[in-house]
Amino acid sequence: MTEKRTRRGEFELIAELFSPLTKGAPGALGLADDAALIGVTPGCELVATVDTLIAGVHFRHDDPPDLIARKALRVNLSDIAAKGAKPIGFLHALVLNDAIDDDFLERYAAGLKADVAHFNIPLLGGDTTSGPGPLTISVTAFGEVKKGRALLRRGGRLGDVVCVTGTIGDGAVGLDVLNAAVQLPETLATSVIERYRLPQPRFIADSKLAPCVSACMDISDGLVADIGHLCKASGVAATIERDAVPLSPGTQHAVKQNATIWKRILGGGDDYELAFTLSAEALLELSTLTAGLKFPVTPIGRIVAGKAGDVTVLADGAVFPVTDGGFRHR
Amino acid sequence: MTEKRTRRGEFELIAELFSPLTKGAPGALGLADDAALIGVTPGCELVATVDTLIAGVHFRHDDPPDLIARKALRVNLSDIAAKGAKPIGFLHALVLNDAIDDDFLERYAAGLKADVAHFNIPLLGGDTTSGPGPLTISVTAFGEVKKGRALLRRGGRLGDVVCVTGTIGDGAVGLDVLNAAVQLPETLATSVIERYRLPQPRFIADSKLAPCVSACMDISDGLVADIGHLCKASGVAATIERDAVPLSPGTQHAVKQNATIWKRILGGGDDYELAFTLSAEALLELSTLTAGLKFPVTPIGRIVAGKAGDVTVLADGAVFPVTDGGFRHR
Repeated sequence: MTEKRTRRGEFELIAELFSPLTKGAPGALGLADDAALIGVTPGCELVATVDTLIAGVHFRHDDPPDLIARKALRVNLSDIAAKGAKPIGFLHALVLNDAIDDDFLERYAAGLKADVAHFNIPLLGGDTTSGPGPLTISVTAFGEVKKGRALLRRGGRLGDVVCVTGTIGDGAVGLDVLNAAVQLPETLATSVIERYRLPQPRFIADSKLAPCVSACMDISDGLVADIGHLCKASGVAATIERDAVPLSPGTQHAVKQNATIWKRILGGGDDYELAFTLSAEALLELSTLTAGLKFPVTPIGRIVAGKAGDVTVLADGAVFPVTDGGFRHR
Repeated sequence: MTEKRTRRGEFELIAELFSPLTKGAPGALGLADDAALIGVTPGCELVATVDTLIAGVHFRHDDPPDLIARKALRVNLSDIAAKGAKPIGFLHALVLNDAIDDDFLERYAAGLKADVAHFNIPLLGGDTTSGPGPLTISVTAFGEVKKGRALLRRGGRLGDVVCVTGTIGDGAVGLDVLNAAVQLPETLATSVIERYRLPQPRFIADSKLAPCVSACMDISDGLVADIGHLCKASGVAATIERDAVPLSPGTQHAVKQNATIWKRILGGGDDYELAFTLSAEALLELSTLTAGLKFPVTPIGRIVAGKAGDVTVLADGAVFPVTDGGFRHR
C-alpha cells in the first residue's frame, strides 16, 4: 500500500473499476440503474445466496486485496456449487472506510476481475458506501439449476456414503500458519496459506455425479459441524473415519508434527469443499461419475441411524473426540 | 433497551426470530440450507438489487430497531418499485456487534415481520455474523417484471414530462428535526421523522401508469441529483419548477420558517419516491393512469435539450441555485 490515502469517489469507483466487470451483460444496465435484470434459462430455477466477509473476522487485515475480493466471491460461489448449480452472476455490496485508498481498490478490483474471467460470471450490480467500521463485503451470488434438481442438505439416507471433495483442513491450518501457531516448511506453508485465502468452489453441475448425490452442502463451519448440519436436515446421523479424510501434503505434515491439529482439521472450517452423500451403489461407479472433475472425491464415512445431526468420528477403531465443533471466526 | 447484553447464538436467532419470516416459502428451505431457490414466473425476468445500511451513516443509532429493519428492507423495495416490478422476496445479511442484545433483535425481527406481512414477501435466506463495527444490514431484494417491460433510467425523451410520486424533502427535513437543525410543531415533526425512518416504496407495476412511463428511478440521493442521473442515462437534460415540487404539510411549514431549507428538500435525499418521465400525451390522461394508486403523482418539470444530466431548477421565473447536489450521508 502506498503512503497516500486518496480515493476515488463512489461514481468514479463504479465507472472506472467495477463497470468493466459486467462484461457487457445487458442485465447489469452498465451499473448505472437501480437494480439488475436477471434472465433465468427456461426450465431452470434461480439459486441465490449471500455471505458477508469482514476484515479481521473472515479474512486478515493484511491479506492481499486481490485475494480478499476473490475470497468474498468464492465463498458465495461455493454455496452455488453446493446446490449443484452453475454460477450466472453476482451483486457486490462494499462498505469501505477512510483507511482504504485507491491502490487498495485497484488491487481489489483486479482480483475480482480475475475471477469474473475465471468463472465467466458478470458483476450485475451492487452498492458502495463508507462507514467507520472494518472493510465489509457482502456478495450475493446467483446460479441456475434445472427445476427440481437442486442438491439440498436434506436427502441423506441410511446406508449412504459420505464423501468430500478436495482436501480438508487446509484453510484452518493455513490460518494457523499465518497466526504462527503452526510452522511448516516454506512450500507447504505457502500452499496451505493459499488455501485459506483462495477457496476453490467445486462445481459439479455438469458432471455425472450430480444426479446421484442425495444431499450436499459446502464446508465452511468445519467438517464435523457441517456434516452434522447435513445430517440434521436429513434426519440421520453419520460416522466418519478420521483416517479416510483426505489431507494435503501441508496438512499431513502438520499432523505429523502435532496430532492435536486433527481437531482443527475436523472442526476448523474455511474448507469450502463439498460434503455430500451417495448411495452405496453409486459409490461402486465413483470413478465413472467423477470423470472430468478436476478435484478428487473421497468417501470418508457413512450415514447411520441415530439422533438426527449426530456425527461420530472414529480413529483406530475408537471414538475420536472432536471438541472444536463449529468454526470460531478469529 | 434493557440492561442485559445477552444474545442468542446465530442458530437460535435464525430458528427463533428469522424462520417465521419465510412464511413457509419452499425456496427458503427453512433458512437451513446454503442458498435459496427462486422460481421466476414464466415470461418474467428477475429484478435484483442490494443496498447496505450502516448505523450512524444511513440510520441513527437511536432509531427504533423495528424501523431500522423496515427501512433496510424498504429502501431495497423502493429500487424494485422503480423498475416497475413486483417484489417476490429478499435475502438478509446482518452484521451484529457486542452491543446488540436479544431485546434489540426481537424488536428488529418484529419490524421485519410486519413488513414481510405488509408487502407479502418471504425472507428467503441470508447470513448473520458479528464484527467490531457498527450494525450493518445488507438486504438483497428480488422482484419480477414481464420480460422487456422493466422501467429503466434510460428512456427519457425530449418533451417528456418529469413526475414524482408522494411528497419530496420529508426524509431530509425529518433528519434535520432529529438533529435539532429544524424545529416543527409536534404533529408535523412526528410526521416528517416517520418519513425519514420509514420509506414508502411506490409500486406501480399493476397500474395503467407503468406502460406509459419512459424512464424511472427512485430518489435516494436527492431529487435534483437523481433526476440528473436519469437524464444522464437518457442523454437529455431537464428543467424543474421548484414550486411544482409536492411538499407535505411538515415540509411546507419548514419552508415558511426558513426558505433556505429548499436546498435540503431538492438535494437532501432519503425520499424513496419515484421520479419518472411520461410523454406529454400521457400526461393528459394522468388521472386515469393513476386511478387506484394510493399516493399522488405530480408533474414537476420537463425533459429538454442540453448537456446530458444537466438539471435546472426554476423559481419565480429565474434559475434557482441548488448547491447541495447529491446526498451526503451523516
